[in-house]
Amino acid sequence: MGTYGWISLTTDYGTFDGFAAACHGVIARFAPAVRVIDVTHHVPPADVARGAAVLAQTAPHLPPSVHVAVVDPGVGTARRGIGIGTPNGLLVGPDNGLLVWAAEALGGVEEVVELTNQGWFLGDVSRTFHGRDIFSPVAAHLALGAPLAEAGNPVDPKTIVRLPDPVVAIGDGWIEAEVVTVDRFGNVQLAANGSMLSGLGPELVAGGVKARLAQTFGDAAPGELIVFEDSSGRVAIAVNGGRAVVVLSVTPGDVVRISER
Amino acid sequence: MGTYGWISLTTDYGTFDGFAAACHGVIARFAPAVRVIDVTHHVPPADVARGAAVLAQTAPHLPPSVHVAVVDPGVGTARRGIGIGTPNGLLVGPDNGLLVWAAEALGGVEEVVELTNQGWFLGDVSRTFHGRDIFSPVAAHLALGAPLAEAGNPVDPKTIVRLPDPVVAIGDGWIEAEVVTVDRFGNVQLAANGSMLSGLGPELVAGGVKARLAQTFGDAAPGELIVFEDSSGRVAIAVNGGRAVVVLSVTPGDVVRISER
Amino acid sequence: MGTYGWISLTTDYGTFDGFAAACHGVIARFAPAVRVIDVTHHVPPADVARGAAVLAQTAPHLPPSVHVAVVDPGVGTARRGIGIGTPNGLLVGPDNGLLVWAAEALGGVEEVVELTNQGWFLGDVSRTFHGRDIFSPVAAHLALGAPLAEAGNPVDPKTIVRLPDPVVAIGDGWIEAEVVTVDRFGNVQLAANGSMLSGLGPELVAGGVKARLAQTFGDAAPGELIVFEDSSGRVAIAVNGGRAVVVLSVTPGDVVRISER
Repeated sequence: MGTYGWISLTTDYGTFDGFAAACHGVIARFAPAVRVIDVTHHVPPADVARGAAVLAQTAPHLPPSVHVAVVDPGVGTARRGIGIGTPNGLLVGPDNGLLVWAAEALGGVEEVVELTNQGWFLGDVSRTFHGRDIFSPVAAHLALGAPLAEAGNPVDPKTIVRLPDPVVAIGDGWIEAEVVTVDRFGNVQLAANGSMLSGLGPELVAGGVKARLAQTFGDAAPGELIVFEDSSGRVAIAVNGGRAVVVLSVTPGDVVRISER
Repeated sequence: MGTYGWISLTTDYGTFDGFAAACHGVIARFAPAVRVIDVTHHVPPADVARGAAVLAQTAPHLPPSVHVAVVDPGVGTARRGIGIGTPNGLLVGPDNGLLVWAAEALGGVEEVVELTNQGWFLGDVSRTFHGRDIFSPVAAHLALGAPLAEAGNPVDPKTIVRLPDPVVAIGDGWIEAEVVTVDRFGNVQLAANGSMLSGLGPELVAGGVKARLAQTFGDAAPGELIVFEDSSGRVAIAVNGGRAVVVLSVTPGDVVRISER
Repeated sequence: MGTYGWISLTTDYGTFDGFAAACHGVIARFAPAVRVIDVTHHVPPADVARGAAVLAQTAPHLPPSVHVAVVDPGVGTARRGIGIGTPNGLLVGPDNGLLVWAAEALGGVEEVVELTNQGWFLGDVSRTFHGRDIFSPVAAHLALGAPLAEAGNPVDPKTIVRLPDPVVAIGDGWIEAEVVTVDRFGNVQLAANGSMLSGLGPELVAGGVKARLAQTFGDAAPGELIVFEDSSGRVAIAVNGGRAVVVLSVTPGDVVRISER
């Protein structure tokens, strides 16, 4: 097993408390030479799908890493902690679907273990902060080169929890797809792949509003709605100089229809 | 005196301005090999007690560090800047009570100096940004191995400013304790030690609301109030899938009574 | 050309998405030994002047760095990407005025190139995320010691986009100056240099409100307005224990008059 120079963190801990810092601290104590990249600590509390989407879209741009993700409303219950091996890195976190999309983005699930090796945990594991007490020290051990198989018992990959696949449908001159995320700029990202745009003409209606197929924000007049392939390869909807999420009045999980005028 | 590989930062500077980055920059210039862990920069402006609580609960999880904390409404006045030595690290910041709880969490105050050695400051000290101009460069010098005693004049530990002890009272079947912090999840942390829960039965009233003694969020039905020992060893109140701070309608400094039904 | 141990990031990406982390990741892949300092990712979306002001005030406190800044509403249009050489570091970002004030704060614009060397970009450049696909990998190449001249074609410095100079006027017993930034504490920073205060007496009116010339917050009574030279050397207005921005009801771009009573 190789070593990893980086550990990434994706959590709903926020940065107002010291929770994320405690994870940094535990990693620094166990693996002082490893560096940490914060993917985000601002996943809305308990929003597993949002955490899964952000991690899946970001992890491929990081160097080979042990990715720790903690959006974990079931902490301290019987839900398993797991480690996943992929061709391009390891993932550590709760078995609630949070890690699977990222595993697929990193090349697919190759190996799964339940984190049962208590020798890698902090000495005194709390019931409510497994990010600090289990996932961070396990990630540190893995980054230092310990084999994933030593983290615990093997798990059949078919048994891990998966989030439902988002709705995507495509027809003659239209796409219907679920909103996956809304970013800071109010851009609305759909589950549909950008390649699905190739069947559409330039004059569109998106979510009931006139829109235009484009490549970037500045291709449209100020205030105009554009449909484009975003930097993660997904279909997205934006407004030049505005917030598409306000124009469309949608939220993750809603389905948006894009069709030719 | 040893060296420290890490400096931590706890401030009310936020991350919208470049204040925290300027501290990172000054540390990087004076001590390029030292790494920085941001505990938080989101202490509410001038909320010394909140900063003290977050630092005290986080610092023990970090590797041996020089901890810089700056929540400093008295910057530029006659309030002292101090350094504190403990068995498990150093603390640097204003003498307004911010550092003392962390010092106790790190094993107790062993040595205090007033930061009077101007040779360690930036050349041109502003009156309003001692985090950048005094505390960061002093921390960098200390991390590189300079003795705390060279940072300035010795101070009698009895003379440093201490925050009032939060209210904690315990009786037959009840606890009364002050709210110390409310975290991102709306969990309400009290000043009482978790060990005080051992005298209580499972059926409780907390802040006038029915509650249950539990170990983790998932032990309760959704919406049910639980009383538990949190990951910092304090008594805390949470709601499974909700925000206890809303249910209880409390704020730090309020006293909450927990009693058997 | 020398190498740089640090890259700084100043963006409007926020920290709710993985955009800033993707930039960290790309830098780590291309230049693993280089360290990153986040100046801020919370520039308000598309607020180029705010980004320019924060970077200009922070960059001089960092070690010699390649400073990447991305507040880029024109991403994907014909606006140029540029690199600027200064006596104290390099700057990389869009040619929309974002970099110029920082270049001046670092000693002045010595050399400008348009980023046309596609060999330094990520293989598949998106139309909407040049921070990840162009500016971060270019910065990594420069930090590793590649000459700025190899990043692309030379550009006449006179042709780069500059933000309008903020209004500053001074007369007998008065200053009028544009608000540049409002910080987390509600302090209002003006474009005027602190040295301009030397001509004013201690009893002032600022924005129509009674104020006092002072050196730090604690020099005033609680609630009193003070005019002072801030930690960036600018004239600023604050309230001891309050928010000057609320008292004055101003926003960046407004002009504030300070005059003797």
